[in-house]
Amino acid sequence: MPSVIAYLGPQGTFTEAALLRLPGADEAERRPMRSVPEAMDEVRSGACDAALVPIENSIEGSVPVTLDSLVRDSPLVITAEVVLPVSFVLAGRADGAVATIASHPHALAQCREFLRSKHSGASTVDALSTAAAAELVAGGRADACVCARLAAERHGLDILADDIGDNPGAVTRFGLVSRPVAAVAPSGNDVTSLAVYIAHDEVGALLRVLTELEVRGVNLTRIESRPTGERLGRYAFFLDCTGHIADARMGEALMGLRRVCAEVRYLGSYPRDTGEAPIPAPPGLSDGDFDDASQWLERLRANGS
Amino acid sequence: MPSVIAYLGPQGTFTEAALLRLPGADEAERRPMRSVPEAMDEVRSGACDAALVPIENSIEGSVPVTLDSLVRDSPLVITAEVVLPVSFVLAGRADGAVATIASHPHALAQCREFLRSKHSGASTVDALSTAAAAELVAGGRADACVCARLAAERHGLDILADDIGDNPGAVTRFGLVSRPVAAVAPSGNDVTSLAVYIAHDEVGALLRVLTELEVRGVNLTRIESRPTGERLGRYAFFLDCTGHIADARMGEALMGLRRVCAEVRYLGSYPRDTGEAPIPAPPGLSDGDFDDASQWLERLRANGS
Amino acid sequence: MPSVIAYLGPQGTFTEAALLRLPGADEAERRPMRSVPEAMDEVRSGACDAALVPIENSIEGSVPVTLDSLVRDSPLVITAEVVLPVSFVLAGRADGAVATIASHPHALAQCREFLRSKHSGASTVDALSTAAAAELVAGGRADACVCARLAAERHGLDILADDIGDNPGAVTRFGLVSRPVAAVAPSGNDVTSLAVYIAHDEVGALLRVLTELEVRGVNLTRIESRPTGERLGRYAFFLDCTGHIADARMGEALMGLRRVCAEVRYLGSYPRDTGEAPIPAPPGLSDGDFDDASQWLERLRANGS
Amino acid sequence: MPSVIAYLGPQGTFTEAALLRLPGADEAERRPMRSVPEAMDEVRSGACDAALVPIENSIEGSVPVTLDSLVRDSPLVITAEVVLPVSFVLAGRADGAVATIASHPHALAQCREFLRSKHSGASTVDALSTAAAAELVAGGRADACVCARLAAERHGLDILADDIGDNPGAVTRFGLVSRPVAAVAPSGNDVTSLAVYIAHDEVGALLRVLTELEVRGVNLTRIESRPTGERLGRYAFFLDCTGHIADARMGEALMGLRRVCAEVRYLGSYPRDTGEAPIPAPPGLSDGDFDDASQWLERLRANGS
Repeated sequence: MPSVIAYLGPQGTFTEAALLRLPGADEAERRPMRSVPEAMDEVRSGACDAALVPIENSIEGSVPVTLDSLVRDSPLVITAEVVLPVSFVLAGRADGAVATIASHPHALAQCREFLRSKHSGASTVDALSTAAAAELVAGGRADACVCARLAAERHGLDILADDIGDNPGAVTRFGLVSRPVAAVAPSGNDVTSLAVYIAHDEVGALLRVLTELEVRGVNLTRIESRPTGERLGRYAFFLDCTGHIADARMGEALMGLRRVCAEVRYLGSYPRDTGEAPIPAPPGLSDGDFDDASQWLERLRANGS
Repeated sequence: MPSVIAYLGPQGTFTEAALLRLPGADEAERRPMRSVPEAMDEVRSGACDAALVPIENSIEGSVPVTLDSLVRDSPLVITAEVVLPVSFVLAGRADGAVATIASHPHALAQCREFLRSKHSGASTVDALSTAAAAELVAGGRADACVCARLAAERHGLDILADDIGDNPGAVTRFGLVSRPVAAVAPSGNDVTSLAVYIAHDEVGALLRVLTELEVRGVNLTRIESRPTGERLGRYAFFLDCTGHIADARMGEALMGLRRVCAEVRYLGSYPRDTGEAPIPAPPGLSDGDFDDASQWLERLRANGS
Repeated sequence: MPSVIAYLGPQGTFTEAALLRLPGADEAERRPMRSVPEAMDEVRSGACDAALVPIENSIEGSVPVTLDSLVRDSPLVITAEVVLPVSFVLAGRADGAVATIASHPHALAQCREFLRSKHSGASTVDALSTAAAAELVAGGRADACVCARLAAERHGLDILADDIGDNPGAVTRFGLVSRPVAAVAPSGNDVTSLAVYIAHDEVGALLRVLTELEVRGVNLTRIESRPTGERLGRYAFFLDCTGHIADARMGEALMGLRRVCAEVRYLGSYPRDTGEAPIPAPPGLSDGDFDDASQWLERLRANGS
Repeated sequence: MPSVIAYLGPQGTFTEAALLRLPGADEAERRPMRSVPEAMDEVRSGACDAALVPIENSIEGSVPVTLDSLVRDSPLVITAEVVLPVSFVLAGRADGAVATIASHPHALAQCREFLRSKHSGASTVDALSTAAAAELVAGGRADACVCARLAAERHGLDILADDIGDNPGAVTRFGLVSRPVAAVAPSGNDVTSLAVYIAHDEVGALLRVLTELEVRGVNLTRIESRPTGERLGRYAFFLDCTGHIADARMGEALMGLRRVCAEVRYLGSYPRDTGEAPIPAPPGLSDGDFDDASQWLERLRANGS
């Protein structure tokens, strides 16, 4: 575990809650940062050893600033992931009225049903983060806030209602990023993350990328497109592939992508934290099958049989 | 042209600027709305005939609220698109100092270089839109703002600097949505927009979707994934396909998607506004080729030759 | 059942045995022909209503003269198939020595093990058909022959050994061809036969053909290449597809092939005679699914939803 | 060049004519054999160093006995190919009448037009080879024969008519086979021959084979199916692929086939003799591209960047 870890702050965010789930993180120095790019730049500059940042949310989708920082600036790799259930509380003063409710707009959006049915008379106040909203309440500038339980505790607020999100299964996925480093050994249930650029904005080019994966039995658990910023119709694709860079089939698939894509940026191989069962290598595509085929080819080349 | 059109307000936004480029829009009643979902709901309720909303930006990517409203609520179709160059101005008082600069965070982000080099001493103020920022300046609550020229004009502000964005080619694409209606006749350079859901989160399922298009020579100019909100790894894909729903090859491709996808939502066929040349039907895939094949099949079925 | 049927003669061939398995054939006038092309030309000229000819054998492979006649001359269609177990007998005089054994070279080749172990001292005599070999024995010009039981019976020969082939499961598949005619109604377990020409001798062109089938869930039970006679590397492909030309998915696949291939020759839809279970339409590709998709498209075109 | 070479005899066949085109063959001991399997078995037993046998003819198609011997018996590899124009002569006695014309049935079939127009009154006599037909004429048992010029010369016959085939561009392709041995170094214009078995008789399985090739930019110049002899619908596929087993892309394609096919039999890498220009590696698939991708992967595995 790195000894100095930046994270998307302030204290009490879901990101800090996620960080505390990483083994050993409670003994690391944890530095809250004001934004995702700043947290990642702390790692690039060497000021921190790693940074924990949100990657995607099952309701809101990917976190654009994280993806853009991963591909537009100098390379970082993901070394671990944390998938955290997003459970909101309504926090404030147990004995006070609730005329104003502060939170980040996304958090307010995810608790719309609760707020509509229980606090239809309250007005909402946008804040820069759920933790900042808790600070507003602590400072008397709002009556209540939608935040993580951790933030309420940090600011000594009362829990007025628990688990108030509209989507009980909502989760956020975080990545621990560091400067480029060899991946930890395969756990048997790993993800390899990539960003690929395709030269042409055509169905054929994307088919080609998927075929390179499919031929080697590499499956996708996520595909996200982000514009490259050049012009409409130019995208980078973020791919989460099942398997580890040390796997023979993943290696061959990566080399295939390297050859057919305008650019491939490797974003790390790390254990999955989703609780889902590992997807085994399809028939014929295990490391043993690759070894056998490689020895066979060597024999054919050496003596024709 | 519809007679009552909602748009993402307030007055002076880039959306209003885009709306004024639609032929006949200057004679329509134009109603600024506070948010994209509200604008689209005005159409659903029948209060407005159409709404103009941003779909994607070449720098920031797609506009999630627009996509989510298109697929999660009752169906609307896009009947026209406007692609607007995003040109920011710095507006304020020609004779005043610039200690505070207001704008929407995305606009500030897109002018970062300019602000860093010319106004490094100024502090930034987040506003809900670039037009709202202009209102703040007009009301004396900020010294200057980053906004569209239209907003500066509406609020009587001076242009302190023109075309200050970091990406000179930045554009935003807007869609005019209405309740479901037959598409206007093909222009020869059209887009058909779809959202498709695939039952399984596998590379094979996405390959299947792309193959249905590719076999009929239908090309993609955009593919965006959005989580369905159910859980990580479940996505809807937004596709912009070259061609018109009246084209034979598009019709067969749509029917193919309908059969293999868990769900397909049709989002409209409309002329492209990107200034790019039309992509002709590949060999063998024109309407004439479909007619010929269809007559041939009819003869084979009727008399075997 | 046609009233005048040509077949590959002479009397007593496996082809005649196959013909007698077709319902009603025993009441038709049956005309033995000296060669496959002659039998097929009897149909083309109108002298016969139909012809039964061998298409392929599980040991020897396809019958080139049949395939070449099907594609190089004026069109015929297959209206029925017969799959006949190929069971050879050794026939001669029960009381005579066996110094010479006559048969068609293919038949001798398929009984090599038997002849080697039981009649290693005999010399073989090539004949133009197994039935002609029986005639040689009847005429005293050979001591024994390898032929069909039917030929032995016709020539009054004794069965010296039964079922002497090396491959007990060997079968030959025959086709009943007629001038072009509408196919009989689907039986639920049908084959559609085609010959397709591809313009370029590339893996991509054959992939394209297979993809047209695969996208519509049409499976192949046979693919054979035959040179077109132009030059090395130019082939026609003979395809046997599961399904009937009246099926929606077969119709769409045929039209797709028509559009992407240099030429497609339809060779008939008819019930399978292999005893294998029918292969049902894959999910999403039944006639009902096509109807549903077609109605959906019509609605989208008419009113956008 | 091997010192003892078997070939499909007798002397004077097209196969001997082809053999004499191989550099150094005129100094080798050349042994005519009665059949293709016997010629190939001479190599298997070690009695000969190599054998020249016909593989395919641009008019007749593949030579089944050659293909079957290549895959059903112990392995041999093709080390060279010869593509020979098939030019027939009518040979006999300059001063004699031509009432009977002998030849192999395939040769008679390929000169049908000539025989019909010039010798419609003559009857044909089937012989086991074109060279055997020349022997018949030399022995007075036929008046004339259709054969290779070489056979006419060997038997002292007069050339009655030259180049009498119906297809002026007809060629036959021969292979020089030997016991398994490393391929000669790439010439820049090579073929790699394979036989592959697929476990299931499905369009999907063949698509899989073609995709393994296509992803590595390996093209096919020939695909032939042969029944495996097990039952209808089970085939081996003979593939001629452009490129050499020493090429990186061919190596990876072979390993891919090895993993997905029930069996792959390597049949040799050797220079093309068709006179056609070499097909260069597609973009991204040269040996240099494979090297680059391989080094990149090594770096990613070692240190993540």
